[in-house]
Amino acid sequence: MEVENKYVSLKHHIHGHPSESDFELATAPLQSAPGSNEVIVKNLFLSIDPYQLNRMKLYSSSHTAIPAASKIEPGQRIDASGVGKVVASGRAELEEGDVVVGLLGWEQYTVVRPGTVLMKVAAKDLPLSYYVSVLGSSGLTAFAGFYDVCKPKKGEKVFVSAASGSVGSLVGQYAKLSGCYVVGCAGSKQKVDLLKGKLGFDDAFNYKEEVDLKSALRRYFPEGIDIYFDNVGAAMLEAAVANMNQFGRVAVCGAIAEYTNAGKRAAPDLIDVIYKRITLRGFLAGDYLHLHEQFWAATTDYLRRGRMISLEDVSVGIESVPTAFVGLFRGDNVGKKLVRVCEFDG
Amino acid sequence: MEVENKYVSLKHHIHGHPSESDFELATAPLQSAPGSNEVIVKNLFLSIDPYQLNRMKLYSSSHTAIPAASKIEPGQRIDASGVGKVVASGRAELEEGDVVVGLLGWEQYTVVRPGTVLMKVAAKDLPLSYYVSVLGSSGLTAFAGFYDVCKPKKGEKVFVSAASGSVGSLVGQYAKLSGCYVVGCAGSKQKVDLLKGKLGFDDAFNYKEEVDLKSALRRYFPEGIDIYFDNVGAAMLEAAVANMNQFGRVAVCGAIAEYTNAGKRAAPDLIDVIYKRITLRGFLAGDYLHLHEQFWAATTDYLRRGRMISLEDVSVGIESVPTAFVGLFRGDNVGKKLVRVCEFDG
Repeated sequence: MEVENKYVSLKHHIHGHPSESDFELATAPLQSAPGSNEVIVKNLFLSIDPYQLNRMKLYSSSHTAIPAASKIEPGQRIDASGVGKVVASGRAELEEGDVVVGLLGWEQYTVVRPGTVLMKVAAKDLPLSYYVSVLGSSGLTAFAGFYDVCKPKKGEKVFVSAASGSVGSLVGQYAKLSGCYVVGCAGSKQKVDLLKGKLGFDDAFNYKEEVDLKSALRRYFPEGIDIYFDNVGAAMLEAAVANMNQFGRVAVCGAIAEYTNAGKRAAPDLIDVIYKRITLRGFLAGDYLHLHEQFWAATTDYLRRGRMISLEDVSVGIESVPTAFVGLFRGDNVGKKLVRVCEFDG
Repeated sequence: MEVENKYVSLKHHIHGHPSESDFELATAPLQSAPGSNEVIVKNLFLSIDPYQLNRMKLYSSSHTAIPAASKIEPGQRIDASGVGKVVASGRAELEEGDVVVGLLGWEQYTVVRPGTVLMKVAAKDLPLSYYVSVLGSSGLTAFAGFYDVCKPKKGEKVFVSAASGSVGSLVGQYAKLSGCYVVGCAGSKQKVDLLKGKLGFDDAFNYKEEVDLKSALRRYFPEGIDIYFDNVGAAMLEAAVANMNQFGRVAVCGAIAEYTNAGKRAAPDLIDVIYKRITLRGFLAGDYLHLHEQFWAATTDYLRRGRMISLEDVSVGIESVPTAFVGLFRGDNVGKKLVRVCEFDG
């Protein structure tokens, strides 16, 4: 029986802000080479992440950085991390019905080639969506970025931008669990309330209501910032550097302001960088696979004991992928953006 | 007998480029408390450094960073590292005639207060000027910045800006001694010739002759830059980041372009910083006193074996301090700028 597979692809490369009309939904028969080691996965949850925008550009220095950031051509399938159910397996270690996590795609079914890592989900007590949010690459990004890049010490003052986003919402929680003082910024009152009320941030503010970010941060950090976990770049990074303490660390995790506008660069004061001996460090979760076990152990424990929350924003149906993605750059999402492609039927 | 002491001081705080008219030469009787633990030093060589400009500003975030960067008020003596001869000593470990290195001042004589470190110069085979250049804070800055901040590996590609300056000229030599490929930039043909001919740089260029720094660096580093030792900031830092390899390191040592023009900020592309996992780190030599012994041992050995050169640019007489200092920002100096206050008479 032939199975139809709906997938999302680019109509053309994207320049500036993305819009729904940059994408199209196509259908093709599911094709797998018979007798191969391929695995066919029916996708349940797909990860929707801002970094994909860089892959969709005609030119970006990110394309050559790592395979996961490689350029996406119009018409092509778009790989993305996801969780799904095995419907046919050519691998000995997997069988029909197994739930797996790995690099799947913005489509209903993914034919996973040999060599692509698929991790079997054994635990049944955690929601499947967690495997592409708090326990997925957003989680590892937050964990590795906060612990390895920021090297926090108890009592340090931590500032997180895009704090209600997929990574920021976790960084803030790790920081609180490490005994730090944490302030986040976000783009709406609802998000700010959530940071303070639900995620346990010590304080939070709506950056859209601040005329002068530098003095806003001075108000929230009268004793200065020790760690800035940067998800946005541009003026926020400049304001954070101006308010940093000696030996401050900036984890340069994302620069969403620059993704949609190449001219929106951050120009931090180097006199501050030198005299305050500030370190700014770019990083990618992919370099931290050696921390995965530790990340997983700590985080599943926090989740099970209710000490950490996975903030998720779920759209339903493969058709919702373009809007879900475009919404990231409008600040629509509250927490990790996911698309539930289909209901898990056990 | 009363001794007259000529000293240089500020007429007013400096904004933008300094000029000779910002300074005045004053004379005052040398005053020391009798019976105290003070040491009176007759200054021989004084260090003339760009960072002093930040101290001379009405406001700079550098003022609160470390005591050596504290604000200089109009009329006040200006401390600076130097080498001099003890003419009177209230300390048991020093006697008249000893040659010492330490924080002296832009003046003929310095009364050194108790608690200020004075290091006695024992070796007689190295020129005294070395103790405020290659063996002074410029040397420690180059050594610590290159080895600790840049963490070089043999064969790596190193770019140095202001490469004929006090620090840059040494970084390039350390890099060559570490088996790296080194290219420097400077602001004149004479300096470029010197880098290639005398200091052993693999290549060098005059940045003033380049229309597009980004493509200039692509020409000099077809395989990319692994380490950028930044003394200038602004557009050169942006161009270097654009040409960096994965896991590249930037030692943010100086930002002379920004010292005289606060608006001349560097805005490196954060997409490069993230995807290439670049680290930018500000540092100060004062944090590396624990490396001093190692620095000193390695460097004196290199100098004695003729494997390293101290490039010095010496003006004569305390009256020459303002011009020597102002010239730093016009690119007048070739190598470490020093003022010889008086001849060493043995």
